[in-house]
Amino acid sequence: MQHGGDVYTEGILKGKELIDFSSNINPLGVPKGFIDNLNEGILNITRYPDLQYRQLRADLKEYINNVEILFGDGDRSLELVHEEDFILGNGAAEIIDLTISSFKSIMIITPSFGEYYESAEKWGVDIVCVSLNEDMEYDYEAIAKNLHSVEAIIIGNPNNPNGGIIDKEKFLPIIERCEKEGKKIIIDEAFVEFTGKHKDSFIYQLKDYKSLFIIRAITKFYAMPGIRFGYGISSDGEFIDKLKEKQNPWNINAFAELAVKYVLKDRNYINKSIKWIKVEREYLKGELKKLDIIEKVFDTHGNYILCKLKNIDCDRLYEYSLERGIVIRKCNNYIGLNKSYVRFAIKDRLNNDKLLQVLKKINI
Amino acid sequence: MQHGGDVYTEGILKGKELIDFSSNINPLGVPKGFIDNLNEGILNITRYPDLQYRQLRADLKEYINNVEILFGDGDRSLELVHEEDFILGNGAAEIIDLTISSFKSIMIITPSFGEYYESAEKWGVDIVCVSLNEDMEYDYEAIAKNLHSVEAIIIGNPNNPNGGIIDKEKFLPIIERCEKEGKKIIIDEAFVEFTGKHKDSFIYQLKDYKSLFIIRAITKFYAMPGIRFGYGISSDGEFIDKLKEKQNPWNINAFAELAVKYVLKDRNYINKSIKWIKVEREYLKGELKKLDIIEKVFDTHGNYILCKLKNIDCDRLYEYSLERGIVIRKCNNYIGLNKSYVRFAIKDRLNNDKLLQVLKKINI
Repeated sequence: MQHGGDVYTEGILKGKELIDFSSNINPLGVPKGFIDNLNEGILNITRYPDLQYRQLRADLKEYINNVEILFGDGDRSLELVHEEDFILGNGAAEIIDLTISSFKSIMIITPSFGEYYESAEKWGVDIVCVSLNEDMEYDYEAIAKNLHSVEAIIIGNPNNPNGGIIDKEKFLPIIERCEKEGKKIIIDEAFVEFTGKHKDSFIYQLKDYKSLFIIRAITKFYAMPGIRFGYGISSDGEFIDKLKEKQNPWNINAFAELAVKYVLKDRNYINKSIKWIKVEREYLKGELKKLDIIEKVFDTHGNYILCKLKNIDCDRLYEYSLERGIVIRKCNNYIGLNKSYVRFAIKDRLNNDKLLQVLKKINI
Repeated sequence: MQHGGDVYTEGILKGKELIDFSSNINPLGVPKGFIDNLNEGILNITRYPDLQYRQLRADLKEYINNVEILFGDGDRSLELVHEEDFILGNGAAEIIDLTISSFKSIMIITPSFGEYYESAEKWGVDIVCVSLNEDMEYDYEAIAKNLHSVEAIIIGNPNNPNGGIIDKEKFLPIIERCEKEGKKIIIDEAFVEFTGKHKDSFIYQLKDYKSLFIIRAITKFYAMPGIRFGYGISSDGEFIDKLKEKQNPWNINAFAELAVKYVLKDRNYINKSIKWIKVEREYLKGELKKLDIIEKVFDTHGNYILCKLKNIDCDRLYEYSLERGIVIRKCNNYIGLNKSYVRFAIKDRLNNDKLLQVLKKINI
């Protein structure tokens, strides 16, 4: 299993401070609502969680149905989802693995999050890869053309490592076809809050299409990868139940429950995060474009930027940055990418500038 | 899936305070070392855990190898286990499920923890049930006689719901045979710290027998069911690796890592807990024996007591206790038990006396 720059091997376990540009986490840090209510968490850990996680489901429903209020676009509470539409995971990793393992064949868009492939291989699921086009955009024609050979498709919105999102208009015919043919579309929206436009999400389409299954997490936008919480949403109750049967009891820990309860309603945090990402995404994209070692900066709606290098490969840039206290993400282990590709997380201005300073000074 | 009295349905979600005698958790509560170091946990949740959990494995190794020092029986550090002997689970539930699912057939001693059976059924594993004898002790002859028909056996030490432990001398020939015939013995030691005699554990035999696989948790003795952490130990590296392949990445949350780091070396907590359980186990056993509604109190080495009722069934006793603010564990959903059986957790003197007061006053 390969994942980004290993900040433990190079940093923490050696007692070295590193700035981690390999992991895409909101730099605003743990939302205050979580820290303020830690005592409730401590009380809760001395008992088993609710086997049915009733409070947790209610909190998630509130979050999704109040998306427009929370993300500052009106005061309408919507009826997009019900409590029974959710399946809860010990991180999105569990949900990805559960869904993929339930099919005989799956289409994976490449490059994308390595766990899709790992999981499919692990469970002997046949894999059909469909590449992004050269601008790292979805190739809807190729997707449609290959649909006949799979039971399901998994697709990022935004995609990792490039940050491209799904064009709803172009994708809708594919959904319609899957709906008719009983295929499933797994949309990984782990980073969707960063787009800043909640209409980019397919939560609005869930009610109308049983074929849709959305994966979300509090990992990235709410800066809590260590808390381990992700979830799936679908209006296909039978499918949700089928997946649940394979889960272990009490798979969500009490602190993850606490986080969901207090963090997902933190309008102040959401507001500040959206303001930050809109400014810094444009800033870092613009500055990276000016660098001698960058051949291309790919368009992104996430909190990370994929770049094609020139005159240097990712191994050298990785070592060079590491010596200067910065961990970047080499992308050569993404299917379809080679040593010319790296990904940078978007951080706060101070750290973005530190990265830029390091990258500017490199001698090619 | 059925588990004990549902304190959520009857209590928490209705805003009612209940004393939970259905769940066997150390009443000394969350060890101080955890609370004192919460800030470290908060820092850690903003990054992904170490994929290899190196610190966590080192902490577990220290715990097992220092068992005699920690449990107040000398100052010898032993070499019982290595860091690579561990497999880490999101609660012992994950480890139980992983191991059981890796066999085609398994022997389950009954009655025992319901998850063994649930998990075997879920994965289509053939089940051979072997009953405890009428005193709720292990029937080693029956175990040996049925061994030929299974790939593995899972057995509690102490067993749940009765609290009986394995007689090492009588069990050793069974281990020897499994070792020769390539069968596995899964020993669930989730409650073993409560026996107060660390030699009861099979950690001393791990090095000599690859067939042994021990399951432990911080759930019960360290009073942290909500933190979700359990682990398996075996000197059979190939078996450990085979199980690991099926796991999801980052399956242990940052607060569980923190707990393992600070709680397992808390000699003061361990010492106080052993003192408490030795006194209260004898006290509650003795007092229960005096009650009119109790036909038999089974011998226990755990922090819970199985009783056979007379002149009342578990449903009535459950309702009666619930009306008085106490949740007990009905045992009729354990294989081999019926409505005459209930289980009581052992709590502190104050609560044990509250339970006894309620049980004394019942009108049969």
